[in-house]
Amino acid sequence: MGLMNEQNREMPLPLPTIRRYPLYLRCIRDMIAAGDLHVSSAVVAERLGLDPVLTRKDLAMSGVVGRPRRGYPAHELQHALNHALGWDNATDAVLVGAGSLGCALLGYTGFEEQNLNIAAACDADPKVVGQCPHGVKVRPMADLPELVKTLKIGIGILTVPNAAAQACADQLVAAGIRGIWNFAAVQLAVPKDVMVQNMDLAESLAVLSHAIARRRG
Amino acid sequence: MGLMNEQNREMPLPLPTIRRYPLYLRCIRDMIAAGDLHVSSAVVAERLGLDPVLTRKDLAMSGVVGRPRRGYPAHELQHALNHALGWDNATDAVLVGAGSLGCALLGYTGFEEQNLNIAAACDADPKVVGQCPHGVKVRPMADLPELVKTLKIGIGILTVPNAAAQACADQLVAAGIRGIWNFAAVQLAVPKDVMVQNMDLAESLAVLSHAIARRRG
Repeated sequence: MGLMNEQNREMPLPLPTIRRYPLYLRCIRDMIAAGDLHVSSAVVAERLGLDPVLTRKDLAMSGVVGRPRRGYPAHELQHALNHALGWDNATDAVLVGAGSLGCALLGYTGFEEQNLNIAAACDADPKVVGQCPHGVKVRPMADLPELVKTLKIGIGILTVPNAAAQACADQLVAAGIRGIWNFAAVQLAVPKDVMVQNMDLAESLAVLSHAIARRRG
Repeated sequence: MGLMNEQNREMPLPLPTIRRYPLYLRCIRDMIAAGDLHVSSAVVAERLGLDPVLTRKDLAMSGVVGRPRRGYPAHELQHALNHALGWDNATDAVLVGAGSLGCALLGYTGFEEQNLNIAAACDADPKVVGQCPHGVKVRPMADLPELVKTLKIGIGILTVPNAAAQACADQLVAAGIRGIWNFAAVQLAVPKDVMVQNMDLAESLAVLSHAIARRRG
């Protein structure tokens, strides 16, 4: 396992592979729950409706060695995929913007699977500061640098209105955050060593409505 | 314009292009608001930090004819991109699952830009039925077929727990929905003529946490 970890640290996995790892993890978890000790890439591919060649390559990139007929040792594969995603270590995040979307994320229980913990929340609105949605106390933006430093927070979740997004991103960067999960519909300008992942509702909806509009014709 | 519309109906645009159209639209809207009557693809690309060659090709696919030095007529380009996305016609959607994420979407004001109107909401929980989050009354699941038919609803927004997602998708399909915007972390099985667009929080977070985990090493 030591060798595998070294490898993951050096080689970034292809983005499409990384995007599929959460799917594989759910499938493997279900198979383990059903008593399977080994999982074959063919079975995983079939269950998820994916190309078996693609799934074989994706799982091979985990560094775990499978056996020709039995497949991969299930727990070891699960651990390796979690490790590749950084989900084997708990990650603390601070949420900036405790509006309706922000509060929904504070109450979202699905993040446990990813070992993501929203440890703190900030908002610029004095009416929102001091409230405690889903057990997380909302603090003023001025507290951000100290929160990030004291709680060793790595990820900022940005759920503010578009007009405020860049200014809040700047504050997150200044506070020492290393990654921003951006729910605002804005292209953020950040230093190169800060990673931004956009979660753009408009972009996602565009794909769906384009397909439906075409069929109307 | 007539010719252009015909073209769009016949030719699907490439997915990456469609994903960038909402970005272009925001940029064009800002430029129109600032008084610009023409927009050049080079300026749009620069503002968004995109490759100018890519942006030139994307905008050319709209079917609008630009002029060598002046660029595209701003309003015509805006109209064409909105049309390609199906955002020039109001689309009614029904939301299934009025939990914390569902209610956040009911209260989200950003959908006006995309002409998406969440006209109705359903939930299986009798305690939630009858509530009225953000002015939309939650109805029982049994009302779904009639709602879809009466209101001529095209899109179903799925914000239920993972375990309930497939069953609810089946009900949406049976009710005659043509597209599902799926917020559950489940690969849905649907007939080929129903379009599914996944909005997977885990997948998006995977990309961010993988990049940050690698840097830790």
